[in-house]
Amino acid sequence: MGNEHQQNACEVERWGLFEITVAGPSEGNPFQDVQLSARFEHKHRTVQVEGFYNGEGQYKIRFMPDSEGQWSYSVSSSREELNGASGSFSCVPASAGNHGPVRVRSAYHFAYEDGTPYRPFGTTCYVWTHQEAAIQEQTLASLRTGPFNKIRMCVFPKRYSFNTNEPERFPFEGSQAEGFDWTRPDPIYYEQLEQRIVQLQELGIEADLILFHPYDKGHWGFDRMDAETDAFYLRYLIARLGAYRNIWWSLANEFDFMQTKTMDDWDRFFRIVQESDPYQHLRSIHNGTKMYDPSTLVLYDHSKPWVTHVSMQYWELSPTNAWLKQYGKPVVVDECCYEGNLPQRWGNITGMEMTARFWDGFARGGSVGHGETFLNSEEVVWWSKGGELRGESPARIAFLRQILEEAPGHAEPIDRLRDAPTLGVEGEYYLQYFGIHCPAYRELPLPEEKSFRIDIIDTWNMKVTPLEGTYKGLSRVDLPAAPYMAIRAVAVGEEQ
Amino acid sequence: MGNEHQQNACEVERWGLFEITVAGPSEGNPFQDVQLSARFEHKHRTVQVEGFYNGEGQYKIRFMPDSEGQWSYSVSSSREELNGASGSFSCVPASAGNHGPVRVRSAYHFAYEDGTPYRPFGTTCYVWTHQEAAIQEQTLASLRTGPFNKIRMCVFPKRYSFNTNEPERFPFEGSQAEGFDWTRPDPIYYEQLEQRIVQLQELGIEADLILFHPYDKGHWGFDRMDAETDAFYLRYLIARLGAYRNIWWSLANEFDFMQTKTMDDWDRFFRIVQESDPYQHLRSIHNGTKMYDPSTLVLYDHSKPWVTHVSMQYWELSPTNAWLKQYGKPVVVDECCYEGNLPQRWGNITGMEMTARFWDGFARGGSVGHGETFLNSEEVVWWSKGGELRGESPARIAFLRQILEEAPGHAEPIDRLRDAPTLGVEGEYYLQYFGIHCPAYRELPLPEEKSFRIDIIDTWNMKVTPLEGTYKGLSRVDLPAAPYMAIRAVAVGEEQ
Repeated sequence: MGNEHQQNACEVERWGLFEITVAGPSEGNPFQDVQLSARFEHKHRTVQVEGFYNGEGQYKIRFMPDSEGQWSYSVSSSREELNGASGSFSCVPASAGNHGPVRVRSAYHFAYEDGTPYRPFGTTCYVWTHQEAAIQEQTLASLRTGPFNKIRMCVFPKRYSFNTNEPERFPFEGSQAEGFDWTRPDPIYYEQLEQRIVQLQELGIEADLILFHPYDKGHWGFDRMDAETDAFYLRYLIARLGAYRNIWWSLANEFDFMQTKTMDDWDRFFRIVQESDPYQHLRSIHNGTKMYDPSTLVLYDHSKPWVTHVSMQYWELSPTNAWLKQYGKPVVVDECCYEGNLPQRWGNITGMEMTARFWDGFARGGSVGHGETFLNSEEVVWWSKGGELRGESPARIAFLRQILEEAPGHAEPIDRLRDAPTLGVEGEYYLQYFGIHCPAYRELPLPEEKSFRIDIIDTWNMKVTPLEGTYKGLSRVDLPAAPYMAIRAVAVGEEQ
Repeated sequence: MGNEHQQNACEVERWGLFEITVAGPSEGNPFQDVQLSARFEHKHRTVQVEGFYNGEGQYKIRFMPDSEGQWSYSVSSSREELNGASGSFSCVPASAGNHGPVRVRSAYHFAYEDGTPYRPFGTTCYVWTHQEAAIQEQTLASLRTGPFNKIRMCVFPKRYSFNTNEPERFPFEGSQAEGFDWTRPDPIYYEQLEQRIVQLQELGIEADLILFHPYDKGHWGFDRMDAETDAFYLRYLIARLGAYRNIWWSLANEFDFMQTKTMDDWDRFFRIVQESDPYQHLRSIHNGTKMYDPSTLVLYDHSKPWVTHVSMQYWELSPTNAWLKQYGKPVVVDECCYEGNLPQRWGNITGMEMTARFWDGFARGGSVGHGETFLNSEEVVWWSKGGELRGESPARIAFLRQILEEAPGHAEPIDRLRDAPTLGVEGEYYLQYFGIHCPAYRELPLPEEKSFRIDIIDTWNMKVTPLEGTYKGLSRVDLPAAPYMAIRAVAVGEEQ
């Protein structure tokens, strides 16, 4: 937190948040009537950043510097009294654990802006920030000890099965009973959200923020605002949140279930986000679909240039290789059913199946998102409200994450071995996953010219068993003929 | 066996086998040089049947009568000495257990010709009749106590992993070392095959006979005979085997892996079989495919008029509903991977997974085939050679078969309930299967106007738990939130 809200400080760390607060008029509707922005300059570069009204006569401009050294700024506004302020700060090296925002590094990979590899191990708590404070604190405690480095979460509240409690505050002034003022965002709502985003940042968790969703059906009306309000909402949101380095923009959850929006609307929203965000945070969109009927699957065309990566809901991971090739962008299967016991098909797979889907998706070069849906008497279900994790998969996801953190950052699916999905770097590293398949042995076609150490990995029991000796060329590897096994082969260094 | 080979007997049971044996010339090549046939007449009907040369100067004509009453026949031949024989017999009612050949009864169903419903519970022992006699007897013993009522088996021997022993006899005279005489079938080979087909018939098992396959690659050359030999082979085979009521014609196994045959060849083979078989036994063809890559899936167009039902290799059962609609014919997923521990992906699923695929496919209105591939020191692997069954799925398949034998014969997939595959008859019967899904409860939308008894079925532990009382309308059914459960709801009779 130390450096997160510095005004006119001498020093801001790289990818930290520099904030200017100025007093100004509060009459009329400053949210819409007052234009405010700042020019930030560093050497040859200029970055134009929009400010926002924070209520009570307070205006703010937030900025995330991405280069070390001296930055200067000057403020301009449609209102004389806000115009002309200027200053400077020094951008110093990032502190430990701050690697910058996550970027797409290649057709397969993400990395933090400082080059550190990033593999998404996401979870889903759609409206955890709309619950009472004690539950929010419990969610943070669960995340602190959990394996996740990304969370999908909504700006708007959600009304759905096991989730019908009315939140205290909303992105707009008003309430369900009294209606909303679509011209006045609620700054307190946003300040509370921002606090949670900073807390996620401290835990090393990316906030994959969902900007629209269909779980409203007119109850509040956030799913059917007019085009002007949609655009106003997006610009205000981005002015407030864009400078937090751990933000991703998920344009929607189950976009195709929103009957009031067209494909043109989604294109337009993408362009607004792309134009408004000075930092070009990651952008994607998540599809709904009848999960039991692939013929109804509706996808947004992720090959469009403003989509940075593929966000997918699908219950099989086998198409991952094909999606990677089709779109030429990293693939995140953000939803593949949830571990739990709901009556609904998407919410009642076992921890074993969830774990298998994670391994399958990662071995195919994609990444996979988690969610949990166990019924409980408090009706606090993780996937919606956060709270406690009860399932068997998070410990296994932590184990997988550890295995992959030991893998080369540039590992890709190895096509020649794809009868069992294999992630690797030819000549260096192979991680082959068998899922439900139970071979008594496998013949692994390793390169002839190098020696490899081989481990058998029991992905469910989280056990790594190294084999004796080293292997080269076509190598028979005996296996326990049980499900959920993997083989890892790592080239032995020159010194061996 | 009693009625299977009757010559000029006074009585033959319906769908039994009536056989005429006549002596004739043995010089030259009677297999190809001598034309022999008979006209069978019953009331207004005439059936023309081809005979065949059985070696040693012996000629035979076989006939399966399908109507009770008096039949007469007259023999004609290109050779004077075989010409003109005539006679008659009386076709009497079928004995117990003889329901006639299996027919397609509707877009979803098979039935025996006497109307008894038939659901295929197939297994696969490709070349069990090419093994030494002791193994063949062991296979029959396994089948006797097993759950299967169909077996996929090849006319030609097979050369493949775990299957490289040379058989003693072949469909043509000769051997691999000396070559084959493509103009002379080996009658002793066929007599041995026929004995096995009759033994299967006694066990109530349909012989789904595979006429071509690619597991030869020129070793013997049965996969690359010329067009004339292909046609001669088919006509001879059909003349010999067509009168056995438990024969099905599977044009090929993995037809698309036979690089010497074209789609036109397969059409031609279908038409030869269709024209030559007086009994119109069931006809289909089985696809190969790269099992790990759906994009390489090549299907024969099962909508062609000479295809009676869909025979499919696929490792997922979820498309079953779509195939049923697409083709308007019963769907048999003859291969969906095998229970076992081979290194190959298609041969190493668990018994639990095999059982789940059976339930899934049947609940979707199709049927599913079994195979077993456990490595063993004798190298007698069920899927290829028969022998012993070692797996965990056959007992569960028997349990499923019993459940389905208690179901209405005309049960079809219920589309309105397809978020979990459901087989049933609206208002009468519902069988809903959850597979890997673990709901803690389900709300089953039963009709309002009838009462139903409900059972919870644990498909793996083979346990049926009846619920107390009766249900109508939208009914909450509590479940153990464990995988592999099913719900059965049966309408209570009027007298209740």
